[in-house]
Amino acid sequence: MFKINDNYLKLPGSYLFSMIGKKVNAYEAAHPDKRIIRLGIGDVTQPLVPAVISALHGAVDEMGDTATFRGYAPDLGYDFLRNTIADNDYKARGCDIGADEIFISDGAKCDSGNIQEIFSLDNRIAVCDPVYPVYVDTNVMAGRTGTYDPQREIWSNVIYMPCTEENNFTPDLPGETPDIIYLCFPNNPTGSAITKSRLQEWVDYANKVGAVIIYDAAYEAYISREDVPHSIYECQGARTCAIELRSFSKKAGFTGVRLGFTVIPRELKAGEVSLHSLWARRHGTKYNGAPYIVQRAGEAVYSPEGKAQLEQQIAYYMRNAAYIYQGLKEAGYTVSGGVDAPYIWLKAPNGMSSWEFFDYLLEKANVVGTPGSGFGPSGETYFRLTAFGSYENTVEAVDRIKAL
Amino acid sequence: MFKINDNYLKLPGSYLFSMIGKKVNAYEAAHPDKRIIRLGIGDVTQPLVPAVISALHGAVDEMGDTATFRGYAPDLGYDFLRNTIADNDYKARGCDIGADEIFISDGAKCDSGNIQEIFSLDNRIAVCDPVYPVYVDTNVMAGRTGTYDPQREIWSNVIYMPCTEENNFTPDLPGETPDIIYLCFPNNPTGSAITKSRLQEWVDYANKVGAVIIYDAAYEAYISREDVPHSIYECQGARTCAIELRSFSKKAGFTGVRLGFTVIPRELKAGEVSLHSLWARRHGTKYNGAPYIVQRAGEAVYSPEGKAQLEQQIAYYMRNAAYIYQGLKEAGYTVSGGVDAPYIWLKAPNGMSSWEFFDYLLEKANVVGTPGSGFGPSGETYFRLTAFGSYENTVEAVDRIKAL
Repeated sequence: MFKINDNYLKLPGSYLFSMIGKKVNAYEAAHPDKRIIRLGIGDVTQPLVPAVISALHGAVDEMGDTATFRGYAPDLGYDFLRNTIADNDYKARGCDIGADEIFISDGAKCDSGNIQEIFSLDNRIAVCDPVYPVYVDTNVMAGRTGTYDPQREIWSNVIYMPCTEENNFTPDLPGETPDIIYLCFPNNPTGSAITKSRLQEWVDYANKVGAVIIYDAAYEAYISREDVPHSIYECQGARTCAIELRSFSKKAGFTGVRLGFTVIPRELKAGEVSLHSLWARRHGTKYNGAPYIVQRAGEAVYSPEGKAQLEQQIAYYMRNAAYIYQGLKEAGYTVSGGVDAPYIWLKAPNGMSSWEFFDYLLEKANVVGTPGSGFGPSGETYFRLTAFGSYENTVEAVDRIKAL
Repeated sequence: MFKINDNYLKLPGSYLFSMIGKKVNAYEAAHPDKRIIRLGIGDVTQPLVPAVISALHGAVDEMGDTATFRGYAPDLGYDFLRNTIADNDYKARGCDIGADEIFISDGAKCDSGNIQEIFSLDNRIAVCDPVYPVYVDTNVMAGRTGTYDPQREIWSNVIYMPCTEENNFTPDLPGETPDIIYLCFPNNPTGSAITKSRLQEWVDYANKVGAVIIYDAAYEAYISREDVPHSIYECQGARTCAIELRSFSKKAGFTGVRLGFTVIPRELKAGEVSLHSLWARRHGTKYNGAPYIVQRAGEAVYSPEGKAQLEQQIAYYMRNAAYIYQGLKEAGYTVSGGVDAPYIWLKAPNGMSSWEFFDYLLEKANVVGTPGSGFGPSGETYFRLTAFGSYENTVEAVDRIKAL
């Protein structure tokens, strides 16, 4: 008789976005005259830029002609894209990363979920609190996290690193020594960034204790400040301790196009075994390459036209971020994020819990955000708004909140 | 100190296609005047059909306009595609499969590699021999296969089901009871098919012993005979024991486009837990949906124009298959497959091993195929040719072999 992976049964329900959906639907049904503005889910709203659209059409035409048709892509990605990424995202920033250390994929969610497979089950992971749920949930599914305490909403074998106002939403080095450290900067959900000197401390720490850092830089395109690193490989020594995940979802609006990549330097080893070789084996066995047309779209992101068009697109979203940040500040809220990231993290006023503030905003301002407690215990009393709406909706949402 | 998943180290090198590449390159370097014809790798060569190209262009245009732009796809796939598949691949064949039992993905290789994750590590798997390597290798990586015997090229905890001329290349029910049974029909690499009555025996067996069948039907579009089922759900009782994997790669030439799906009926349960819910959780946590434009391309495969165009494309390849089959028969070879599948499976003549025949064909006819021993011990002395080349190349390759 077949048996299931019962680690799955340990997962608590993923209530966050379904609960939000239920509450919004119920409110809408009861108040059909109200116009609700959604600044909750982290999905983009601006269309693909013309350079990308043009590259997609061109690649589609190639696929329709015997002479230019492409079958299976190379498992690790086409050289044209790997070279472009190496040049633009790494060499141009002084990072020593070769094209053959870049693994093209269908997105950072998949990569951040799959990367744990190349590690032993008896590694201990450390995560920020609050955190993007995929890091923890995929380790739960693999059986690495121990038992769940539903009261405290934590796992017995996970090291949590609180990110709070006190530490400026960047974690302190953990008291217990982890084997695998998940860091995401610029951060989802808090919108905070990490300085290069502070990230260097993490790299030094990981090299000292023999931990590997899984560095999720999905939001790097939103960085505006000089001292905030775009890549962990800007830090000395990162080649021996860090894997970096990147995404085109927020950089180029590819949430529905699906493209990302993982960087594993060849020096990153456990004894004689390079993680690069393990990930290459995983890609070759369990993955079949990103679509050719999508890889051509990715290449266009780095063309002169693509860069210029996407600079405008990101500026559009960051104008929203600045409007939210400024407006809430003026209304007396404690606000952070929104400078190097498309997320604004605010403290619920008057001692409200995250969900109380959610209900309050929905009912009083008809604005939907995301309760911070959904990302972990240290997110309680916090609230996330995103800059991915239209400018008009963003302005109206903020003005409604200010008017409360 | 982080530790790796050392199950990866148990994997023998994947020599098959790299060894083929090396031998072909060496021969080409030594004989630059010879024109080599490749009938080895299972990649398609015909371009996407006009209905698909047109759908792709249309969807690309939608992505370039704010009003029609699409962000994240639903994790399990767009309803327009799930409904189309349910209607065309299942309801039209009398199979009781609902759209909500269809999980859209980026291809059957990923699905066949990932599906084992929802099962316990102490399940025992059964595979055909010879076999598509992904089924076994992904179970090795998970730690389910025991130890490897490099002499016999088998794993201690895997049940092998030889597929030979004696059983018409369809396996006999195993002597030991497995928990998970991988079946692929029409078969890669042997090109054999299974009749509905024979598949019914497998469904009855699985229900009796409490095993789950992972049924890989990636080549179903090539079926020509009436008594060969296109889906395992044509068999009574399959809803309580079978998962089906499907691919657009060979059905519509999507090897470089990436689209597939997995069917899990809601009745397929271990105790109270449905595998449907586990796979939905996996998809929601570790996957982020297939690209919108690719899902629209998949929909076009089922349009009247798409169907007509793809019927011609498959007929093109199957004309190749018939030419290979007939030509080799006339030349005195023992040949099978090629009727319901794009693969021809032949016995190396004069007691040659698979690799000896590979060298012989490469040197004497400048034709490249795939040694059967690369797919498992029972593939030794066999050889695979594919029908995915151009007609002109296929004819020339066969004529060269006949002239030997």
